[in-house]
Amino acid sequence: MPQSEKVWIYDTTLRDGAQTEGLSLSIEDKLKISLQLDRLGVPFIEGGWPGANPKDIQFFQRLQENPLQQAELVPFCSTRRPGLTAAEDPLLRPILAAQTRWVTLFGKSWDLHVTTGLKTTLDENLAMIADSISYLSRQDRCIIYDAEHWFDGYKNNRAYALETLRVAIASGTQWIVLCDTNGGTLPHEISSIVDEVSQAMQPWQEKAGHDVQLGIHTHNDSGTAVANAIAAVQQGAAMVQGTINGYGERCGNANLCTLIPNLQLKLGYDCLPPDQLSGLTPASRLISEIANLAPDEHAPFVGLSAFAHKGGIHVSAVQKDPRTYEHVTPDVVGNRRRIVISDQAGLSNVLEKASLFGLTLDKAHPASRQILQELKTLEHQGYQFEAAEASFELLIRQALDQRPSFFDLQGFDVLCRTHDVPQNYAACSNSSVLATVSVKVGDQRILTAAEGNGPVSALDSALRKALVAFYPAMVEFHLTDYKVRILDGHTGTSAKTRVLVDFTNGHQRWTTVGVSTNIIQASYQAVTEGIEYGLLRQSQQAEAELKSTPLPLAT
Amino acid sequence: MPQSEKVWIYDTTLRDGAQTEGLSLSIEDKLKISLQLDRLGVPFIEGGWPGANPKDIQFFQRLQENPLQQAELVPFCSTRRPGLTAAEDPLLRPILAAQTRWVTLFGKSWDLHVTTGLKTTLDENLAMIADSISYLSRQDRCIIYDAEHWFDGYKNNRAYALETLRVAIASGTQWIVLCDTNGGTLPHEISSIVDEVSQAMQPWQEKAGHDVQLGIHTHNDSGTAVANAIAAVQQGAAMVQGTINGYGERCGNANLCTLIPNLQLKLGYDCLPPDQLSGLTPASRLISEIANLAPDEHAPFVGLSAFAHKGGIHVSAVQKDPRTYEHVTPDVVGNRRRIVISDQAGLSNVLEKASLFGLTLDKAHPASRQILQELKTLEHQGYQFEAAEASFELLIRQALDQRPSFFDLQGFDVLCRTHDVPQNYAACSNSSVLATVSVKVGDQRILTAAEGNGPVSALDSALRKALVAFYPAMVEFHLTDYKVRILDGHTGTSAKTRVLVDFTNGHQRWTTVGVSTNIIQASYQAVTEGIEYGLLRQSQQAEAELKSTPLPLAT
Repeated sequence: MPQSEKVWIYDTTLRDGAQTEGLSLSIEDKLKISLQLDRLGVPFIEGGWPGANPKDIQFFQRLQENPLQQAELVPFCSTRRPGLTAAEDPLLRPILAAQTRWVTLFGKSWDLHVTTGLKTTLDENLAMIADSISYLSRQDRCIIYDAEHWFDGYKNNRAYALETLRVAIASGTQWIVLCDTNGGTLPHEISSIVDEVSQAMQPWQEKAGHDVQLGIHTHNDSGTAVANAIAAVQQGAAMVQGTINGYGERCGNANLCTLIPNLQLKLGYDCLPPDQLSGLTPASRLISEIANLAPDEHAPFVGLSAFAHKGGIHVSAVQKDPRTYEHVTPDVVGNRRRIVISDQAGLSNVLEKASLFGLTLDKAHPASRQILQELKTLEHQGYQFEAAEASFELLIRQALDQRPSFFDLQGFDVLCRTHDVPQNYAACSNSSVLATVSVKVGDQRILTAAEGNGPVSALDSALRKALVAFYPAMVEFHLTDYKVRILDGHTGTSAKTRVLVDFTNGHQRWTTVGVSTNIIQASYQAVTEGIEYGLLRQSQQAEAELKSTPLPLAT
Repeated sequence: MPQSEKVWIYDTTLRDGAQTEGLSLSIEDKLKISLQLDRLGVPFIEGGWPGANPKDIQFFQRLQENPLQQAELVPFCSTRRPGLTAAEDPLLRPILAAQTRWVTLFGKSWDLHVTTGLKTTLDENLAMIADSISYLSRQDRCIIYDAEHWFDGYKNNRAYALETLRVAIASGTQWIVLCDTNGGTLPHEISSIVDEVSQAMQPWQEKAGHDVQLGIHTHNDSGTAVANAIAAVQQGAAMVQGTINGYGERCGNANLCTLIPNLQLKLGYDCLPPDQLSGLTPASRLISEIANLAPDEHAPFVGLSAFAHKGGIHVSAVQKDPRTYEHVTPDVVGNRRRIVISDQAGLSNVLEKASLFGLTLDKAHPASRQILQELKTLEHQGYQFEAAEASFELLIRQALDQRPSFFDLQGFDVLCRTHDVPQNYAACSNSSVLATVSVKVGDQRILTAAEGNGPVSALDSALRKALVAFYPAMVEFHLTDYKVRILDGHTGTSAKTRVLVDFTNGHQRWTTVGVSTNIIQASYQAVTEGIEYGLLRQSQQAEAELKSTPLPLAT
């Protein structure tokens, strides 16, 4: 492709994405996400529907005070209500107050929705579209017209659906975005309908005297949202609307994290600045953290497993030539290749991991087989080292006799007392948690006690109290995430629990794992190993610094 | 479409699906899944690779003893090794020992894989394909030939790739399945390549004197596995290979739970017996339970959210006419419409829920606004009632003064002691958990104590001990699942914990929720409400039975 054609990315994570079941974004969350999208180079960011939602009014105000660097922030709203003028409609006022250059207006394309949803006439709906677009245009707004339920409307009453577009174009919209609101359309239908619409629009554009471009907005109810958007682009659509991680109600919207690399890397379109594409995986993960939704580890391009290789043959082949098992190079989208440690792993995977940890281990070493054996036993018990690489490093070091002993946990007690239990859902009842810890550092035995607002935090405090005098670097260690997975949930409260804990010391991150039928024990195992691993890293660093520092001259 | 064309569904959940990161299936698991697929009417079930995997040999033996009712069970294996005859290859022996009618053989289509992966010549690879197919055909096996890396191979060396197919057809294969092994191909490429292959195959089939049909096997690395399979079917492919829930390594395989309804409901192909399609959602959920992988709640057709309606406008529209916001009717695929209870929920959602619970509540009732308010407060604290409908019913009953009191929990203590902590990953250490519970039933106060293998099971035992004398029906209540979600994981061990607990009494299921920074408290709240809800259901039933039983005649 000699010259890349532009496809405009329009992100609606903050509006349509916010409809995801289980997702609730604060204004601060929305600000963080919009900054992240701006940095990524997304040209249009739909911020919400100010007016329909009081939070969104504030969000637009906040961004008026501190505008985005590159992106156009766009408010979303419906065409005016039946029976009012656009100037009278109270819902259009906050849209103007948002003081943006662009406004997205959505209107009805499907006669069924006009009559049963809006309960108005087909003619009044046309007037609503015309009035709203003309009114906002006169206020110097550029318009993106979202033709809601376009594909269903077109299939049910083609003439009327097309008339809504003719009216929108005649009234001055810059964009027509065809929406598959219910997500029921398949790619071949998208192709033919986009092509037909594109042809139908020619004379209307000429008459209106200005260019109108086509966009596409798809939902994933048929599992083809990405393919549908691609099909539309291949028929000339120049804007794709979607969300980060495919968030959205029901089955979600078109996933921009999939769509952008497909369009840019495979079809040669210009979507994001080329040097920004590697920001896609970090953006996806950060936004899932802000949204507090577990990331889809199997997501194309950006998922943790997207470039994970498990079987022994795959691993050796992909090391020889990545093309053999990878459709794109992971680092182009900011992801990385992973060699998965699992009981299907061969020896070569274990050796590969050891060398990543900076440990020398070869096939002939007796520890190699021992590690593989231990790995299988532990995975059978419910351990999982795919994510908990710090625990896996400790396991290898143990086998190699290279695991220094920083402390020796002797035992711990936890007492949780809850009294005056409130009836249904009152604030936390009268509850106290006390933990005691017995730990040895060298020959010294230390006994500490601490309180906490839960059993794990009490234990963590007691352990820190015991160790910080010996290892002051520990004050920098923080738990950043704590995940619990019930392994065999069907055995009820006796189920085994797997706990993953993420730590940071400010510049490195590591993850450890613990498994037990007792959640406190599982948590504690992960926390203890996390602290041990942090101390190990810290001592290695101190050693490296010592080596690189010249000895002071004797005076 | 007057007469439905057949598209053969080929399930590879047990082989390619088993490559999913984090998935490990026992033989019992595999048996359960194969029974489920057989019941669903899937015509081909790939059971594994007997020989490469000792578990798979046993699995095929077990199914020889108890064969499936309808489906063809198919073993998977590679063409013979370079330099051996097919009869000599030790990997082909267990395939014959499996005594199936069909065998799937995979071979290399891409010259790069032949030379770098297999390290053999292009000619030897052709001989490997020819020999293996002829040998197995002579043993009366019908052959499905999986052309691995087909699309990459075809794009890189078209002549060689086609030659592998010509050889496979000449050697007697019944099916040619084109595999997009790396998942990098987009739908328009699939369309044109399948069309070209289909034309190229014509003369070879005529020469071979038997019909050879085309199949498609896609992976989801580009997020288009389903669309790719559909594109191939539209070009004449008559078999689709995929997995339940899209399991598979990296980004997974084509999801049969999406593909089947698309092909059958939207494109009119004949895939499953029409009365079996409603088994799809239950099969998807059961298999995710057996696989012990959290179901994708946003999965098309079968996900919990696939037909969930959140916004107030949607809810009222969809009640008037389901077509307005649903692309297919949920019950056709065994799913159901859900009205989501969330802080975006309007009053109409709350009223709808109440009526589903059999409670009379209208807009004018002062409790309505109170419930809505309480809902928002609790959701803000981290509660989620979308899944925990039993807790939501108790909340409504509370507001309506229709929540009977079965018992009154006064307080509880939990003591966890862990001593002689073992170094790294030894079996559970010397640990004991003791729980005491103080509860009132009517005026009577009961104090009990129990041990358990974790804090929640100890508490559950102590509570049951206290209550069972009053409510013997409790012995039938069982916890069937227990889920923990850390709400703000980034605050580390002080994070809030949300616990969901599933109960059953043998014929009904219900779910409750608890939230606290203290996981024990959160768990306990959910367990207590679960028991209360079970007692409520039981008392309602007893009442209903009493009403329907005629009074005994006085003697």
